Amino acid sequence: MTCWVPGAAGSPYGLDNLPYGVFTNADQPARVGVRIGDFVLPLCAVAESAAFAQPSLNAFLALGREVWHETRAWLISLFGNEEHRALVEPLLVPVDDVTLQLPFEVADYVDFYCSLQHATNVGKMFRPDSDALTPNWRHLPIGYHGRAGTVVVSGTPVRRPSGQRLAAGSSTSGPIPTYGPSARLDIECELGFVVGTPTLLGESVRTADFEEHVFGVLPLNDWSARDIQSWEYVPLGPFLGKSFATSVAGWVTPLEALEAARVDLPGQDPKPLDYLSVGARSGYDIDFEVLLNGEVVSRPPYAALYWSPAQMLAHLTVNGASLRTGDLFGSGTISGDDKAQRGSFLELSWGGKEPFRAGGMDRTFLEDGDEVTLRASATGVAGGRIALGEVTGRIVA
Amino acid sequence: MTCWVPGAAGSPYGLDNLPYGVFTNADQPARVGVRIGDFVLPLCAVAESAAFAQPSLNAFLALGREVWHETRAWLISLFGNEEHRALVEPLLVPVDDVTLQLPFEVADYVDFYCSLQHATNVGKMFRPDSDALTPNWRHLPIGYHGRAGTVVVSGTPVRRPSGQRLAAGSSTSGPIPTYGPSARLDIECELGFVVGTPTLLGESVRTADFEEHVFGVLPLNDWSARDIQSWEYVPLGPFLGKSFATSVAGWVTPLEALEAARVDLPGQDPKPLDYLSVGARSGYDIDFEVLLNGEVVSRPPYAALYWSPAQMLAHLTVNGASLRTGDLFGSGTISGDDKAQRGSFLELSWGGKEPFRAGGMDRTFLEDGDEVTLRASATGVAGGRIALGEVTGRIVA
Repeated sequence: MTCWVPGAAGSPYGLDNLPYGVFTNADQPARVGVRIGDFVLPLCAVAESAAFAQPSLNAFLALGREVWHETRAWLISLFGNEEHRALVEPLLVPVDDVTLQLPFEVADYVDFYCSLQHATNVGKMFRPDSDALTPNWRHLPIGYHGRAGTVVVSGTPVRRPSGQRLAAGSSTSGPIPTYGPSARLDIECELGFVVGTPTLLGESVRTADFEEHVFGVLPLNDWSARDIQSWEYVPLGPFLGKSFATSVAGWVTPLEALEAARVDLPGQDPKPLDYLSVGARSGYDIDFEVLLNGEVVSRPPYAALYWSPAQMLAHLTVNGASLRTGDLFGSGTISGDDKAQRGSFLELSWGGKEPFRAGGMDRTFLEDGDEVTLRASATGVAGGRIALGEVTGRIVA
Repeated sequence: MTCWVPGAAGSPYGLDNLPYGVFTNADQPARVGVRIGDFVLPLCAVAESAAFAQPSLNAFLALGREVWHETRAWLISLFGNEEHRALVEPLLVPVDDVTLQLPFEVADYVDFYCSLQHATNVGKMFRPDSDALTPNWRHLPIGYHGRAGTVVVSGTPVRRPSGQRLAAGSSTSGPIPTYGPSARLDIECELGFVVGTPTLLGESVRTADFEEHVFGVLPLNDWSARDIQSWEYVPLGPFLGKSFATSVAGWVTPLEALEAARVDLPGQDPKPLDYLSVGARSGYDIDFEVLLNGEVVSRPPYAALYWSPAQMLAHLTVNGASLRTGDLFGSGTISGDDKAQRGSFLELSWGGKEPFRAGGMDRTFLEDGDEVTLRASATGVAGGRIALGEVTGRIVA
């Protein structure tokens, strides 16, 4: 089947991708659209389902896996058969003419901590007197709840947060906190997972049922103010160091588009408890790039993650916590073995002590005016590369 | 002004209280109601505002402080003037005939940790080798995000959560985690604050503007599985040990009803940073009772809390995190100086090592079938006592 949309065949947004988003253009209200090549098709223009005449994907997400699959098959047929061209082509909107909105209303947002390399790096920096990994790390995918109300779409400016942090020369044993703008503003390069099918309170989701509940993925930047975080986070975890903004891409890529990107996990030792048991090809081979002001400064490999997303979801619900349509969970910072694969500036600059080069300068944390973009790609089902939507944000004072 | 509603004058739900909730009765859909004495008035029956013909308080909460005040003044006039009796009395529904629903859609849920006595007790038990209070505790109201999707209304059964916890005889240095039902299921007696007026991303709420944003309060039980929590919570905070259920009362008491209950804080040393500065009467004198199977086992005093709710809100937003209508934040467990004032079974039984007497038995943590009720009362503006709505839950296997 060949795609008739001009420029789409062989592009990173071909028939094997088809991510969904919510967009506005001209004076039209926000609508659900699907991306094909460098165009967006407003789905309410071709489908009668009320799920598409919405300013969010939530109604569509709630319809469940069978409808997700049927809709995708129908779209592949629509864009792949020349006979539909006359009807559909006039409806396409150039992607440069649209403004992407937050693609779904975020219900609860959970952030995990699934990279062994990231957890090890952070442990060494934040808790130099202890083992880098906490005793629980290899037994469960550690996670915590973040602020759903401050998840924003790519392109939203990120205001440098102010807050309480320790004065220079102060220590936690004789602390002198001060108020002011964060001086250690950072990124976290993550993959976010979007829940479609909800569960009832008291139910748990088995690892095998992951794809019944999770619709798709999107790159996620969990902006982090390290100075605020390190002062506040003991004993109840990160709060204001994270809650000022979390940026997500405007396009949600369906799991179906990532079928060929599935790979084995790197290996888990010790073997996890039964409720966390997964089989082969539970990981995803997705290549990320972190760009600082347009320059690639890191290439975090999603395939390196220790815990799989099915394990994250099984753990999240093992206590009977219900899922809602629109729940979002992040993988945690993706870091590989190499320095050039680290997914945060904290790690790239080793706590600010070992600046890295970018833009011809020595860099540590984010400066006002800096723009960070996370982009990702994977092997599509047709064997080429598909692009996941980008997530960008510029720091404002 | 004397209330004409039979039995309401001088009762804990008189003209000086007037809490709001959402209820169903007979075959009517969920509607907003106000409680007066032992009756509920469906507000859509007497007011044309679309805000009341809703299955949640959110639309009303979003209208802001002036409307909250005017509505309250109008209701006081309605129930206080005999001339309205003929019209209104036939509309009253006996409270025993209604089923209360979750009163509002919870946007984000944050839980604080504002009791010095509770934090000290927990610190001694969870971190016996360190100072009981972490170095940051007296500098900021520590908080973290909880799961908004599992906030349930009073009366909802609470299923004992299963999850991962350490096997008996295991230690965190050589951990042997197992899967199974929590053996240390607990309560946390808290006061919850309900946000009405939202803010934009990047705005902070000054302590002086607390009442512009917070509509009212309700008792809150932050159920906690201590064995799951103690294994999981380092380094990113509580997650599955809390996320299975948080129960709230069905009635939200407006802050206006608590004007006479305002008291000075116990005292803060060191003086907090300017953004946390508050004046006199920033606390609330609200008496709680914890009932286990109908028997009072503790009387936590809200007035003992170290941090005020205006400080919690100012801290929550100091980094520019936006508020949404329906945001909920809890005070954290309320514990007083005396053993009989502790707000959790963890503290009442000192980690299970010192059982307390209830029902003629030695008790530590919750057993299946146990029912816990939190109830609270305060001095009303007319000088009598007003009741805050109760929150009840029974443990099921």
